[in-house]
Amino acid sequence: MFGTKLKCLRCGKEYPLLTKYSCSKCGGILDVDYDYEAMKKKEIGSHLGTKKDEGMWKFRDFLPIKKKESIVTLREGGTPLFRCERLAELTSLADFYLKDETRNPTGSFKDRPTSCAISKAKEEGGNAVITSSTGNGGVAVATYAAKAGMKAIIIVPSTAPRNKLLSIVCSGALLVKIKGIYSDCFSLARELSREYGWVNLTSTFLNPFATEGDKTVAYELYRDLRLVPDWILVPVGAGPLLVGIYKGYKELKELELVDKLPAMIGVQAKGCAPIVRAFERGEREVRAWGTPHTIASGIADPLQGYSDDGSLTLKIIRESGGAAVAVDDESLVESVQNLSRLTGIFAEPTGASSVASLRELKKRGILKEKDTVVCMVTGSGFKDSHTIQKYVEIPPKELEPNLEEVREFLDQKLA
Amino acid sequence: MFGTKLKCLRCGKEYPLLTKYSCSKCGGILDVDYDYEAMKKKEIGSHLGTKKDEGMWKFRDFLPIKKKESIVTLREGGTPLFRCERLAELTSLADFYLKDETRNPTGSFKDRPTSCAISKAKEEGGNAVITSSTGNGGVAVATYAAKAGMKAIIIVPSTAPRNKLLSIVCSGALLVKIKGIYSDCFSLARELSREYGWVNLTSTFLNPFATEGDKTVAYELYRDLRLVPDWILVPVGAGPLLVGIYKGYKELKELELVDKLPAMIGVQAKGCAPIVRAFERGEREVRAWGTPHTIASGIADPLQGYSDDGSLTLKIIRESGGAAVAVDDESLVESVQNLSRLTGIFAEPTGASSVASLRELKKRGILKEKDTVVCMVTGSGFKDSHTIQKYVEIPPKELEPNLEEVREFLDQKLA
Repeated sequence: MFGTKLKCLRCGKEYPLLTKYSCSKCGGILDVDYDYEAMKKKEIGSHLGTKKDEGMWKFRDFLPIKKKESIVTLREGGTPLFRCERLAELTSLADFYLKDETRNPTGSFKDRPTSCAISKAKEEGGNAVITSSTGNGGVAVATYAAKAGMKAIIIVPSTAPRNKLLSIVCSGALLVKIKGIYSDCFSLARELSREYGWVNLTSTFLNPFATEGDKTVAYELYRDLRLVPDWILVPVGAGPLLVGIYKGYKELKELELVDKLPAMIGVQAKGCAPIVRAFERGEREVRAWGTPHTIASGIADPLQGYSDDGSLTLKIIRESGGAAVAVDDESLVESVQNLSRLTGIFAEPTGASSVASLRELKKRGILKEKDTVVCMVTGSGFKDSHTIQKYVEIPPKELEPNLEEVREFLDQKLA
Repeated sequence: MFGTKLKCLRCGKEYPLLTKYSCSKCGGILDVDYDYEAMKKKEIGSHLGTKKDEGMWKFRDFLPIKKKESIVTLREGGTPLFRCERLAELTSLADFYLKDETRNPTGSFKDRPTSCAISKAKEEGGNAVITSSTGNGGVAVATYAAKAGMKAIIIVPSTAPRNKLLSIVCSGALLVKIKGIYSDCFSLARELSREYGWVNLTSTFLNPFATEGDKTVAYELYRDLRLVPDWILVPVGAGPLLVGIYKGYKELKELELVDKLPAMIGVQAKGCAPIVRAFERGEREVRAWGTPHTIASGIADPLQGYSDDGSLTLKIIRESGGAAVAVDDESLVESVQNLSRLTGIFAEPTGASSVASLRELKKRGILKEKDTVVCMVTGSGFKDSHTIQKYVEIPPKELEPNLEEVREFLDQKLA
C-alpha cells in the first residue's frame, strides 16, 4: 500500500491514515495522501492496463487499504465506456463517450466510494456503519454492509425514490426516513456517528476514503481512451465524484502517464444549483441553497451546513478550466428518453443530467465539435422508475389475444 | 467463424446458417452446429481465459456471427461469480457459488441471447425485430434494438412487471400488451413475424441464435472455476438457458478442456411447473400447463402450443443426471430477502428461485454438503419492485429532523 496519511486540504495539517471526518484544527476536508515517488519507482502505473482482475480493485495500489482480506467488494467499477454514434449525431459531437456507471452492482457510481470506505471500516474493526444519502448512497451502503455482515443505519429524506428504499429494507439495514431535506440527514448522521461510534460512510467529502473510490473512474478512462478527454461532465450534488476523478488524473500526471488534465464540468439541476450559482457569479465560496425543487433527487443537495464541500468542488472546476451548468426538469426527462432510445442505457434523471447539459454547453461555445467529451451516467432508471413513470406513459390499452385485433393495432401505430 | 449450419435436433435435417425458426420437415427445434475439429486444431479453447475483451463476445469464436461489425453489444456477459460464505452457511453447502446475471446491461441474462440473435439479424440485413416475452426478454430486445437503430415490436402479457414495460416504452419500442398468458404472446409474435417479415427474437428455442448466447455462461464458469461444478441450478420457463449452458459444457468437453459435464437442475414455480410435473411422473413429453399462478413472472410460461420446448429441456435435465424441482411463492419471497441480506444481490422472485430450491434439494438428498453448486441468479429486483413491494414493508414512519426523536427511534429499533 502506498497511502501514507490524511492531509487537510485547507490548512495542511496531517493525520494518520485512519477514518476521520474533518480537520480537528480548522474543520477542513481531509484527503488521502500517497507516496507517489515510491509508486513511480515501482512503475505502478505501467500495470494499469494489464491487470487481470476485474472491477476497481485492480487499482488496489492506488487505494488506501492495507490487506486484501479487508476488501468488501461486489465487483464495482470496471464499467463500460461507450462510444455512442447515434447520440453523438444528435449533439454534433465527433468524439463523444458515455461512462456507464449504471452497471455497478447496485446500479450507481456510489458503489465505488462505498466499497473503498467500508473496506477501510472493516480494516479498522468496525462492525456498524451509518450514512446519510439522497438514495443511491444509502442503497450502496446497505448492500455492502449486507455483504460484509455489518449493521447499517441509513438516513434518507422521505422524498428518496421508493425503489431505493425497498432495496435498503430488503438488505436488512435500518432505514430512517426524515421529513426534511438531505442536509438534515447529513447533520443527523454526523451526530449519530459520533454518539454511537458507528463509522460514517456519507460519501460527500466527509469520509476521506470514499472519495478515493471515486477517483478510480479516471484510471479506467485512461485505460480505455489513453488520450485525456478535453471535457468530463459530472452530475454534482456536493461533488465528490467530480473532485475524485480530477484527483485520479492528477495522480496519473504525477506518475507521468499523462501530460495534461481534463476540464471538469459540474452539472446541477436548476432547482438546486448552489455551485452553479457561485460559478456564474464569480464567487469563491458556495452558499447553501434553500429547499430543492427538481426530479433529479440524486443531486438535490442544498449543502446546508457543509457548503465548504461545494466550494471545494467549485475550486476544482475552476482549477481545471471547466464550468458549472444547470439543467431543468424538462431536459432531464428528454435526456432519459434520448439515452434510452439512442444508446440503450436506462438512466435515472440525475444520471442523465450530464447528457442534458450538452445542448446548453454547445450553445455557449464551451464544447466544440471536435472536442473529446465524456459524460458520466451515474445511476440506473430502474431505481427511480416512479419518477420516470410520471412523464413516460405506458400505453394503457390491453388487446385480446386475437391476431386480427393485434394486426389492426400495429397497422395503426406503424402507419 | 466456426459455425457451419443449422441442424434439427429431432430429425437431423440440415439448413444453411441463417435465421430460421423450426425444421421445415418435422417442425423440430433447430440448433447451431460448429466445426469442432477445426476449433480443436486451432486450439481455440486455450484462449478462453486470456482474451482481453470483456463480456461474452470474448467468446466470439464460439458464436455464429461472421463479421465483427455485425455485433450489437452493450457488454453483456462477463458477470461475476460470487462465493457467498454467509448464504453457504445457511444452506450448509461448502462449495457454493452465485452467478450474478443481474449485472447484465438490462439486469437479466436475456441480454446474452438477445445480443447474439440481434447481431445475426443485423448481419442478415434485418431492420425490424419482434419478440414475445414475459418481461425481461422484451426489455433486452427493446434495448438492443435501440442500440442498433432497429424498429422493435414487443408482445407481452399484461401481467408483465411495470418497470419492465416502462423501460420498453422509454427505449422507443412499440409495446403490445395482451390480455392473456405468455403463450398467447408467443403465438402472436410467431405469426406477425411471418406476415410482416420482422426477425423474431423470441428467446425460447424459436430463434436458434439466441440459445447460442446463453451457452457463454458455461465458458465463464469454466474460466472462473476451472473444475466442473457438480450441479448448476437454473430457473426455467421453456428452458433455453439450461439447455444453452449444457451445450456450452458439451463443447468444452468436445474440445477436451473438461472431462465431465455438470448435472443440470431446472427450477420452476409451483404455480407453473409443466417440466417438473413431467419429470416427477417419469414422462418423456412435457404437456402444457394451464394459467400460471405465481409471482415468478419470468418463468410463468405454460408452454401452450410449443410444449416440445419443455420436452427438450426435460431431456437435457435427464441426460445430465439432473433434476427438476418446483418452489412456492413464499420461499421465493424469503429467498429474495436472504439473497439481499446475506450476499448483497437484489434479485427478482424468478431470479431467486434457484436459491429458493436449495432447501428442498438438500432435503431430498440430491445436493450433498460437499458438492460444488452454482445457482444462476437470472434477473434484478429493481425490474420487478412492484411485486417485491407487496411482501416487504417500507416502514411508513417519517421522523422530524430532530436528533432526540431520531435517537429514540433508533434506541427502540436497536434494543
